[in-house]
Amino acid sequence: MQNPPPIPAISLVTLGVRDLDVSLAFYSALGFRDTTASQDSVKFLAGANIVLGLFGRSDLASDAHLEDVPTGFAAQSLAMNLPDEAATDAMFASAISAGGTALKRPQKVFWGGYSGYFADPDGHLWEVAHNPFFAMDADGVLQLETRP
Amino acid sequence: MQNPPPIPAISLVTLGVRDLDVSLAFYSALGFRDTTASQDSVKFLAGANIVLGLFGRSDLASDAHLEDVPTGFAAQSLAMNLPDEAATDAMFASAISAGGTALKRPQKVFWGGYSGYFADPDGHLWEVAHNPFFAMDADGVLQLETRP
Repeated sequence: MQNPPPIPAISLVTLGVRDLDVSLAFYSALGFRDTTASQDSVKFLAGANIVLGLFGRSDLASDAHLEDVPTGFAAQSLAMNLPDEAATDAMFASAISAGGTALKRPQKVFWGGYSGYFADPDGHLWEVAHNPFFAMDADGVLQLETRP
Repeated sequence: MQNPPPIPAISLVTLGVRDLDVSLAFYSALGFRDTTASQDSVKFLAGANIVLGLFGRSDLASDAHLEDVPTGFAAQSLAMNLPDEAATDAMFASAISAGGTALKRPQKVFWGGYSGYFADPDGHLWEVAHNPFFAMDADGVLQLETRP
């Protein structure tokens, strides 16, 4: 029997944006830190467990051999899980105050947690949530049990 | 002077998909592992540093209070950084063989690395890359130096 492949990391999430300075300021306000890897045309911000890349959206399209047509519903959400409801509210407030758009204020939701959504200055979708059923390490990285 | 906010994690990336079983099979072939947190209507797959969520795309739209209109160019890319060119080719081949669409075969690129792009069964964009300038830990998590 073949061994299962190693579990991969998602090393980076890259967001295609209109204005790198606007996005850099927005994500810095949320706590992501600029790194020495950043250049004029691309920014690499450190998250606790991952790198957040910021790149011109047409540059990203062209790098991936895709056409830069308008985004409808991207059907992707990035989530920050927070240790409690107050921390979830605080992160949501930081995002709105930094120029994000409130889509759903953090609230108790049907699955028993607490969750809200905002959009970044380019419309990229973020969830902030407290999930009392998910174990999390000190960095906010979820510790779920893999199935055998 | 105020302390900078703590560096946040991106706890989850959630992809809105048409068919949970198709996506679960696709991402399992890439090495992501199903977890005991998964339910019928939502899957939580363990990555080395992050959880990959799979959720019906209309469910995701509705959870975020957005309309489920077609995706044009989502302007988001998820990246797996690999330790060398051969591992990059192997991951790309796994993705294509599992039902992904080749957008750009891994190749030497202008910034001095090696990179390719594929789309998952729903069109979600992934880059596979070897970047000789980025330090990486054993899990594939990038170790970049934050600016002071």
